[in-house]
Amino acid sequence: MRNFKLTLAYDGSGFAGWQIQPDRRTIQGELANAIAELTGERVLPQGSGRTDAGVHALGQVASFALESAVIPLENLWRALNHRLPGAIRIVSAEEASPDFHARHAAREKTYRYRIYRGEICSPFKANFVCHHPYPLDEPCMAQAAQVIVGEHDFTSLAAVDPEERDNPQPKSNVRTIYRSSLRREGEELVYEVTGNGFLHHMVRNIVGMLLWIGKNKLPPEEMTRVLAARDRSAAAATAPAQGLYLVEVKY
Amino acid sequence: MRNFKLTLAYDGSGFAGWQIQPDRRTIQGELANAIAELTGERVLPQGSGRTDAGVHALGQVASFALESAVIPLENLWRALNHRLPGAIRIVSAEEASPDFHARHAAREKTYRYRIYRGEICSPFKANFVCHHPYPLDEPCMAQAAQVIVGEHDFTSLAAVDPEERDNPQPKSNVRTIYRSSLRREGEELVYEVTGNGFLHHMVRNIVGMLLWIGKNKLPPEEMTRVLAARDRSAAAATAPAQGLYLVEVKY
Repeated sequence: MRNFKLTLAYDGSGFAGWQIQPDRRTIQGELANAIAELTGERVLPQGSGRTDAGVHALGQVASFALESAVIPLENLWRALNHRLPGAIRIVSAEEASPDFHARHAAREKTYRYRIYRGEICSPFKANFVCHHPYPLDEPCMAQAAQVIVGEHDFTSLAAVDPEERDNPQPKSNVRTIYRSSLRREGEELVYEVTGNGFLHHMVRNIVGMLLWIGKNKLPPEEMTRVLAARDRSAAAATAPAQGLYLVEVKY
Repeated sequence: MRNFKLTLAYDGSGFAGWQIQPDRRTIQGELANAIAELTGERVLPQGSGRTDAGVHALGQVASFALESAVIPLENLWRALNHRLPGAIRIVSAEEASPDFHARHAAREKTYRYRIYRGEICSPFKANFVCHHPYPLDEPCMAQAAQVIVGEHDFTSLAAVDPEERDNPQPKSNVRTIYRSSLRREGEELVYEVTGNGFLHHMVRNIVGMLLWIGKNKLPPEEMTRVLAARDRSAAAATAPAQGLYLVEVKY
């Protein structure tokens, strides 16, 4: 058996997210199909985590094992790219140790969220940013972004994971955030967050809070209050999927 | 009656081209629907020319007349953008003289064609460039691009327009090209052409010739021979739609 680690970039616009689903176009499904077509082996590539429908990736990581010993790594990489739709590209490929697992081994993840502040959003950006041309108190948002750095219980900022709903021993919602910051890049407001793990919808819910604080000019301390509540209903609505990018996973 | 001139940008990926067609998503159709929803008037906006399925625009121009005198221009512009899909944006709007017609009055058009030369094409570019990672003699192509400058009969580089097929008095295929040049922009090869008018598929057929010359290292004089033949079958295949942009129309 050979174990592989792929780094993938994808435009999530036309997909129902990462996770394979019957009769839906998904990243995991397209990758599994390409591997099966090429090698004749039906495997389920493991991602570092799921991404929602419409969410993009610059550096998603996937792992899978193959029995076929024949294909050189470079050829596998090239041939998979040839079979995958243009909206999914393998940007790097390597052979990994037999025990490498893209989800279990992930130590740190970075996400980016792009908010376009201009009046008219270019049609070439429509699927790639969240368009918010209305007033926002950006310094206030930047301050609120700082609040989540450190170890916190993120129950208020997590959707209930459908796969966890009936788990009698619920998993911990405590995560550690290493960096969380907001910056201006021309007409875009870019939020970037790095942590040891993220709950379902967590980044989009953080951004939802930042937009809420920015719009209503609530004090940045609102973020502290919402975290302390440990109650999803205390927080703002989830921000749209299309502004979000999984940037990098570290092992 | 008030006559309007709109400048439109669009991502042509999800559309069956400019021209309205029953049961197909087209730019002209979406614009006509937005105008009808907003004003109650069913008009057919005239474009400076048709663009094919998958072809993009940075500055397509459309004109139409409305009876409703009430809506201020700024509001019309804003409200149409609000109703149009994000893949189509009105980038400027003005009231035009009553006789202005986007197609009849067009004096000069500029198109751009983007060829991505890198090994792996980003998924975020897949719909927006033609990917050609194989060897190309770029200086030779640049020289061939020069050949078409001036007044020429472009029969060899035009698809037979379906609407012209049975016209007993065929229109002239003579056009004047003012500028035609190829440049490198990082990993992209960018072709740009300006002329007083373009025949159906003409830019994609010019690029098809440039690619043919670049690939086979035929001399740039091949372009001269093909033009002189006045025969579509003498020329290379049409280049893919997704690399092409209508950049600007001058009046």
